[in-house]
Amino acid sequence: MLYTLDMFATVVFAITGALTASRKEMDILGFLWLGAAAGVGGGTIRDLILDQPVFWTVSPTPLIVSLCAAAAMHFIAPIFQSRLTAITWLDAFGMAFAATAGTIKCIGLETTGIVAVVLGVFSASAGGIIRDLLGQEPSIVLRKDIYVSAAAAGATTLVLLNAAGVSIEIASVCGFCTALGLRGAAIAFGWTLPVYKSRPARNMNE
Amino acid sequence: MLYTLDMFATVVFAITGALTASRKEMDILGFLWLGAAAGVGGGTIRDLILDQPVFWTVSPTPLIVSLCAAAAMHFIAPIFQSRLTAITWLDAFGMAFAATAGTIKCIGLETTGIVAVVLGVFSASAGGIIRDLLGQEPSIVLRKDIYVSAAAAGATTLVLLNAAGVSIEIASVCGFCTALGLRGAAIAFGWTLPVYKSRPARNMNE
Amino acid sequence: MLYTLDMFATVVFAITGALTASRKEMDILGFLWLGAAAGVGGGTIRDLILDQPVFWTVSPTPLIVSLCAAAAMHFIAPIFQSRLTAITWLDAFGMAFAATAGTIKCIGLETTGIVAVVLGVFSASAGGIIRDLLGQEPSIVLRKDIYVSAAAAGATTLVLLNAAGVSIEIASVCGFCTALGLRGAAIAFGWTLPVYKSRPARNMNE
Repeated sequence: MLYTLDMFATVVFAITGALTASRKEMDILGFLWLGAAAGVGGGTIRDLILDQPVFWTVSPTPLIVSLCAAAAMHFIAPIFQSRLTAITWLDAFGMAFAATAGTIKCIGLETTGIVAVVLGVFSASAGGIIRDLLGQEPSIVLRKDIYVSAAAAGATTLVLLNAAGVSIEIASVCGFCTALGLRGAAIAFGWTLPVYKSRPARNMNE
Repeated sequence: MLYTLDMFATVVFAITGALTASRKEMDILGFLWLGAAAGVGGGTIRDLILDQPVFWTVSPTPLIVSLCAAAAMHFIAPIFQSRLTAITWLDAFGMAFAATAGTIKCIGLETTGIVAVVLGVFSASAGGIIRDLLGQEPSIVLRKDIYVSAAAAGATTLVLLNAAGVSIEIASVCGFCTALGLRGAAIAFGWTLPVYKSRPARNMNE
Repeated sequence: MLYTLDMFATVVFAITGALTASRKEMDILGFLWLGAAAGVGGGTIRDLILDQPVFWTVSPTPLIVSLCAAAAMHFIAPIFQSRLTAITWLDAFGMAFAATAGTIKCIGLETTGIVAVVLGVFSASAGGIIRDLLGQEPSIVLRKDIYVSAAAAGATTLVLLNAAGVSIEIASVCGFCTALGLRGAAIAFGWTLPVYKSRPARNMNE
């Protein structure tokens, strides 16, 4: 199941990377580069921190599939009416897949719950962060709407259900739905978390 | 002692990350994310390069403490008159703690002196760099005042004293004080290193 | 041969890092920092993903040589008429060296061909990406002229020739020349790849 989730997360993030490449009018190798980096970035960082073999060096299938998806996007992307809307929604799916995959992998390695949640959140956001840094877009971490919170809620649900004795399959489905549902609602209805006495930086010297 | 230094460096950097999140008006999960990333970032890169288990996956206490500190900051940050001043000074402490911890870990693994100094400097600056990249602030590496130099001076002091037979505890204290003292003086008095025939980029094509 | 290629790639990228530091008027420690990060960055990420000991922790010679080169640049850089031209051409050599080194290392570890090509491209571009992110320059991945394509062509040539039974030395020379030749021609003649129905992001909401 972990392999399937990794595959989905990789492909979906690869497509968002390719769409970002399209917004920046890159050539086809730029699509492949940004697609691959966004696709495998989150899982790579997760595996490095967990001291596991990086998943796409063991079996290159996710890498190949995401390169193909990114190449296809080179020709398909101009069809999209709004690439940013497509990126936002696909990214929501990629986030939910990656958060679930990251958390499951940690549970399988029997880390503590807090490490599983934090690594789930990191895997879920790293691909998007790499994509936005390299494409010089505003980073997803800076978004006002619920993003990190959705990943954290999904990972926490999974860890708690698993600790409560629920089978890993059912816990994963619940975690995935929590993350995707929260993020989807945030996109659709503009949900944000309240901020305690918010005050922006007045200037560079504040 | 390494564990204690890691703990201090993590918590102090976590607070600077949370304060940066406050400047950007993030929600509480943004505080936790940026706090955790800034807190454990430097030590994580150090451990990966040294091929050691990442410190917070072995014992999650530093991670938990920094998440708590970042959460507390969500409510405390609005009290600060100047968050940037707080970030600058806390960052100086974090840098000195992390430079000392990174260098000690390398000495314990018997790397060459130059590797110990370089990794000390990388551990000391990586947390702040991740924080500034993600918060889209000007990077600390681009600052004109003494920063990298202070970390390098501290790490070099530690390595040289250790090589001269001084006990690791005393060498660490000296290295820490060198790094913090230089950085503190640079902040307080605006110290900079002279630049040989400085000439900015005239334009994008120079 | 891998060691020699790593050495060349490290030193050439270290010089481009130092020249970037010069454009930003950093002090000498800034030169060392950015030189070391750009120099060893690509190879470090390659070794981490391949789960190999990071090359400069095993033998610090490349690190020392690139620190020396970066320090020398502090005094030599003001002589250059155009630092950006120097960076562009040196970066082409560094890219070709790193792409070849990355691909050879993967072949030696008997990874699949696609992993060898992707890691070759990542090693070739990571040093430059780190340099541009930290120096806050437009990233090389966003350049319109052929860059990633040249690295990919070189790595693919190497992998195909090796698979066809050509000795690794000859395959490496061919791969290196392909990468450098394509990139050099792109710089000299402004070569770009055609883009299918290019359309920039109309605005932030597209």
